[in-house]
Amino acid sequence: MKHLIGIEGFMELDEALDIVDAARKWMPHAENKIRPRGLDIPDTAKVTILMAEPSTRTSGSYRQAAALLGFRVQEISGAEATSMMKGESLADTVRTLATQGADVIVMRTKFEGGAQFAAEILDSMGCGISIQNAGDGGSRHPSQALLNLLALECYLKRHHAFTYGAVGDLRYSRTLNSDLEVFFLLQQRYGDIKIVAVSAPETRIQTYRKLGLDIIEGDTLELLRQCDVVGATRIQKERFVDKHELARVIGRYIINRRVVDEILKPDVLLMHPGPRCEEIAPDISQDPHLIMWKQMFGGVPTRMVLLMRGYEGRKTKSAVALIKMPRVSIKEEEPTQVRLARRKERGEQDTYFRPIYERGTIIDHLPHGSVDTLKRLLKQHGLAGEGCIHALEGIKNQGTGVRKDVIVLEGRHVPESLFAAVRFIAPKATFNVITDSMFRKLAVDVEGSSIGNGIFKCPNDVCITNNDPEAQSRFTIGEGGQEVICDYCQRPFSREEMVGNFG
Amino acid sequence: MKHLIGIEGFMELDEALDIVDAARKWMPHAENKIRPRGLDIPDTAKVTILMAEPSTRTSGSYRQAAALLGFRVQEISGAEATSMMKGESLADTVRTLATQGADVIVMRTKFEGGAQFAAEILDSMGCGISIQNAGDGGSRHPSQALLNLLALECYLKRHHAFTYGAVGDLRYSRTLNSDLEVFFLLQQRYGDIKIVAVSAPETRIQTYRKLGLDIIEGDTLELLRQCDVVGATRIQKERFVDKHELARVIGRYIINRRVVDEILKPDVLLMHPGPRCEEIAPDISQDPHLIMWKQMFGGVPTRMVLLMRGYEGRKTKSAVALIKMPRVSIKEEEPTQVRLARRKERGEQDTYFRPIYERGTIIDHLPHGSVDTLKRLLKQHGLAGEGCIHALEGIKNQGTGVRKDVIVLEGRHVPESLFAAVRFIAPKATFNVITDSMFRKLAVDVEGSSIGNGIFKCPNDVCITNNDPEAQSRFTIGEGGQEVICDYCQRPFSREEMVGNFG
Amino acid sequence: MKHLIGIEGFMELDEALDIVDAARKWMPHAENKIRPRGLDIPDTAKVTILMAEPSTRTSGSYRQAAALLGFRVQEISGAEATSMMKGESLADTVRTLATQGADVIVMRTKFEGGAQFAAEILDSMGCGISIQNAGDGGSRHPSQALLNLLALECYLKRHHAFTYGAVGDLRYSRTLNSDLEVFFLLQQRYGDIKIVAVSAPETRIQTYRKLGLDIIEGDTLELLRQCDVVGATRIQKERFVDKHELARVIGRYIINRRVVDEILKPDVLLMHPGPRCEEIAPDISQDPHLIMWKQMFGGVPTRMVLLMRGYEGRKTKSAVALIKMPRVSIKEEEPTQVRLARRKERGEQDTYFRPIYERGTIIDHLPHGSVDTLKRLLKQHGLAGEGCIHALEGIKNQGTGVRKDVIVLEGRHVPESLFAAVRFIAPKATFNVITDSMFRKLAVDVEGSSIGNGIFKCPNDVCITNNDPEAQSRFTIGEGGQEVICDYCQRPFSREEMVGNFG
Repeated sequence: MKHLIGIEGFMELDEALDIVDAARKWMPHAENKIRPRGLDIPDTAKVTILMAEPSTRTSGSYRQAAALLGFRVQEISGAEATSMMKGESLADTVRTLATQGADVIVMRTKFEGGAQFAAEILDSMGCGISIQNAGDGGSRHPSQALLNLLALECYLKRHHAFTYGAVGDLRYSRTLNSDLEVFFLLQQRYGDIKIVAVSAPETRIQTYRKLGLDIIEGDTLELLRQCDVVGATRIQKERFVDKHELARVIGRYIINRRVVDEILKPDVLLMHPGPRCEEIAPDISQDPHLIMWKQMFGGVPTRMVLLMRGYEGRKTKSAVALIKMPRVSIKEEEPTQVRLARRKERGEQDTYFRPIYERGTIIDHLPHGSVDTLKRLLKQHGLAGEGCIHALEGIKNQGTGVRKDVIVLEGRHVPESLFAAVRFIAPKATFNVITDSMFRKLAVDVEGSSIGNGIFKCPNDVCITNNDPEAQSRFTIGEGGQEVICDYCQRPFSREEMVGNFG
Repeated sequence: MKHLIGIEGFMELDEALDIVDAARKWMPHAENKIRPRGLDIPDTAKVTILMAEPSTRTSGSYRQAAALLGFRVQEISGAEATSMMKGESLADTVRTLATQGADVIVMRTKFEGGAQFAAEILDSMGCGISIQNAGDGGSRHPSQALLNLLALECYLKRHHAFTYGAVGDLRYSRTLNSDLEVFFLLQQRYGDIKIVAVSAPETRIQTYRKLGLDIIEGDTLELLRQCDVVGATRIQKERFVDKHELARVIGRYIINRRVVDEILKPDVLLMHPGPRCEEIAPDISQDPHLIMWKQMFGGVPTRMVLLMRGYEGRKTKSAVALIKMPRVSIKEEEPTQVRLARRKERGEQDTYFRPIYERGTIIDHLPHGSVDTLKRLLKQHGLAGEGCIHALEGIKNQGTGVRKDVIVLEGRHVPESLFAAVRFIAPKATFNVITDSMFRKLAVDVEGSSIGNGIFKCPNDVCITNNDPEAQSRFTIGEGGQEVICDYCQRPFSREEMVGNFG
Repeated sequence: MKHLIGIEGFMELDEALDIVDAARKWMPHAENKIRPRGLDIPDTAKVTILMAEPSTRTSGSYRQAAALLGFRVQEISGAEATSMMKGESLADTVRTLATQGADVIVMRTKFEGGAQFAAEILDSMGCGISIQNAGDGGSRHPSQALLNLLALECYLKRHHAFTYGAVGDLRYSRTLNSDLEVFFLLQQRYGDIKIVAVSAPETRIQTYRKLGLDIIEGDTLELLRQCDVVGATRIQKERFVDKHELARVIGRYIINRRVVDEILKPDVLLMHPGPRCEEIAPDISQDPHLIMWKQMFGGVPTRMVLLMRGYEGRKTKSAVALIKMPRVSIKEEEPTQVRLARRKERGEQDTYFRPIYERGTIIDHLPHGSVDTLKRLLKQHGLAGEGCIHALEGIKNQGTGVRKDVIVLEGRHVPESLFAAVRFIAPKATFNVITDSMFRKLAVDVEGSSIGNGIFKCPNDVCITNNDPEAQSRFTIGEGGQEVICDYCQRPFSREEMVGNFG
């Protein structure tokens, strides 16, 4: 492990289970405050904790974990961190911390995808530093999800074959998001995880966060009757824009003595990542079902393991290729002269072909009306110049009567890194490339490939790409090619949302 | 010593003097920054400092003390602590710190009794953690009082036989409150402490803080002429609700060159706990009478001793019984049948007796009109039910003509833990208990016993019991039974204040 | 080195170069986080960092430097430091830190001259503590200037024979101020430093900050074409009083791809002390000309050296004499009787001489009208009393017709420490002193001597002398005697500014 950014997409289930297993072995060390033997950490090794949003549990347990392992700790938090990050970008902030000797940077940011962006910046500078995501806005909180998994192991005595009930603010809880990533991996392997979600309509789990899990949703605590574990989360007040909405949801679900006695299973485990507000009533603070303090205690050994793995892996190369290229192969190939002759024979119109007889590109089968958007895209990437781009608009198909547009680039080739963007704007676009008077029709598969370089603006205002001058947007084209997923905030967006947002 | 909550009521004079003596021995270690030999502190031992109000002196000298002894320190202060304690209760905050490996928690809270409540919460969870009160609102600051005592030992060369002049804000100064606790213990042993108090009428020492000490009060600096030691305190701006009142008192008493030369004794010692505002003028900053910097320096060795004692004692059981039960004995005892027959013989009215022939309780001699309040109290504690409580109101005494109320409980007994509350509401209440057809008249002495379980709301808004959802009020009935003292904020309240506040 | 307050006037060029040389040797230690060998630092040695204005770079690199050397660190910053310094004076704050075991205090203050004042306070108490100025308002930032010099050494490969272009906010940048102090010392030795300054008219370098350096000023980036090094600074928003002015200058100069490609030298070095705002565009963040991250990295070894030197020198006496006395010698000497007789012979008027026949002072040649100001000055210093001061106003010179005033002090002498103040108010004042009936006319040279003791109020509102009740103003009379320079904020003021400000 080099960085800890998220669970799903960043870590195999086996690695997650292995971390939890190692954390379990270090629980006695954490409890008795004994440094594990055989660690090779020089006394100048350093963990820097940067908390741009308030944190007590996460920063405190990371600090304790670091100290037990023998790391020095530099913490920048509260007003200091806020003022730091007002004055400068996240990119510059992590560069600064790199100049001050950090081996591991544990960071909480306000922006979704912040930790990943920080990791990319440091990687691009060749810094051997591990980034650990301690919460990026409402997006992810992977170390919390791992310590929750540890609590299941220890107190439920199993990590599958259970029904989990989530209750509270399921829309903005980054902890739940990361829990769902864990549950998704477990469900894929074991198939016996059931999830129940109780919340006000305003705070339902966002669809893209469900990862295709089959979740029973409703708004009554009665639904929790079947759960082996109930995980409550506080209303994330700081993320609500609409204060009336906040007023409607706050205090709506409260687990108290009565709920424990009358609704929940007799051996239910009640979890909470903290801080607890009104959602767990004081009358069950000392109730044995409420394991939140034991759960929280697991934060120290879990983060000990994460720090060690990050520290050990900090100098390794990040294996992730940032730009995923489309799969491209040659479908047809023939000298332009041959092709031209054949078309002529068949009486096919060929007005647009002449200028690129030797070298050029024909992007064909564009929806009628898309040509202006595409021209802007190509010009942005330097593919323009006097007489270079020919836009042919409204060419009528003789058979169907449907009109299409075509773009012809004289003497220029479109780099493959742009194919995904072109195809997302124009889903049926075909790419014909002429080189040294040889015509090649390409087979291009863009599913899973990247639209990078800030071509599209991410529609999510709290995505890091909209909150750092150096962060360029990057999306991955989803299955079926109908939507893209932001590489940073992980949110999916439809073609309409994206194209409308372009340029 | 396990916890350091306060002086009087928490510590014998000998222990206080012993701490000061030990601190004196460690002064050279503090000055030369040498770790005392022979300490047995593992390098993972941890002091957590939680400052919910600003602190520099106390937190800084506790940090330095901890470092000299070899403790690791985690400090949570300023905006971070504030935001922590906005989001969650004090109880949850200290539980969280317990999961992060604290051995000693030094805490400053805004609420009176906060440190004691924190100690009770941790004790109830079986945590072996020492709580040290670094200031709880305007209530107490015991480590400061001990270092002040050290300054007297070192620079006055005695800890009794002196006249002490307090000047400034004597109403809100928690330092003075703790000093008075020390002076009270000294006065009890030596009898030769004289106290002079100079302040505006708005900032007089609150009566209950005087602990019965004989204090000469006035509003002129002339009164300080007789003092061996003068202790100035700044106006505690942050505790004033009325800004006009604040304007009237600020800057009113200033010790300057002229006062030193013309009023004070030639060998007077001028003390100040810091921070100094205008009350000690800049023109005597370097005057040898002003020992505030030497006094402050004593903070490090004093807190070294306190940390060591708390650390060594952290696993001991807290000896304090939280609920002090009333003294109950049997005054009369006879079979109900015998009693009934005798009463009948004497022609005494007995209408209310029949229903409890075998088992029940008669609470007699209640003031006429008090029955509703008492019924609410009994019902709150589950002593109600169909036909269970009979309230007899306005029974006229044949001799005096005075009316009384009586409560008869069918088949139920009142737990002894409620006797104090009943007696505080109804000072002449008698308890007659019938069990297995045996009538017993109880002799009940509630002086010094507890009214716990949140029965009464503490009338002090800044008491911790009004500021933490888990903190239940608890009072001790004072001498004579006419007032109660809050177990947390230590303030006394009359029957009228309490009963009006009930239910 | 005991304290680090500033460069020019505090440090010889050789010392600065020696520090940079030592820092260069420790760069590998800083990079690989290896403690240099052979240091003699006990594990209780302590660096206290007090940041009354936000700091990340400076505090972070000082922390890292301290940790690599083996110091313990106490940091007080952000809201905590602000609230500390609201509640108490800077003098009391540093005294408090002294009681908590600091060996070195690294401090950032809002007020110009703050670090120097702190050093004087601690020195006057005999504390063996080194003060290191980490920025005092808009005045100085010497450790930043030294690390900038290290960057020149490392990446420009020389520390002279270059053209340096400053761009941005040149009025409020304390970093530039300290850079100019370094450049001034270099220029004096080598003579081949050229400085170009590009800024809006509102943010020009203040004249007194130029130290007489020959600086080419303008408002176009074109001027940077000739520079070997370009140092950009952000607009110091927090120092602007006029928000319209701020709006006019912000974003005015931006170094971006185009400027690098089209204007700057091909091998230019681009420096920036951080934090970077808009003045260095994101499109050159990874450009090799931009060495700001390497430059920033030099902060750790530079501050390692500074901490070591301060620590080693902390117990030495500060060699600086705070009050510089005027040079005084005797010009004429004769018995008063002889003089009196001779004057009489010559027929000179001598009305004012009689009262001081045996002992006294005559201050002669005062500008007509200045006598009231001077009387106030003398009275302030106890040189008054019944019949003691005689003011003779408007005495007409028989030859020129110009009128003068004269002050005669019966039986009293003016202390030499006041000569500078008198002469600054009255530039032609002569001092005649009679002792034991012996008349002496003094030759007094006040250039370079002090006007101390708070006699004049410093006209600079953000000077520490106007922001701490114990800080008394102190000025040095400049060359030619026409202006004074504040010993704290280093700003020069004319006679008119000062005298108008008196009393």
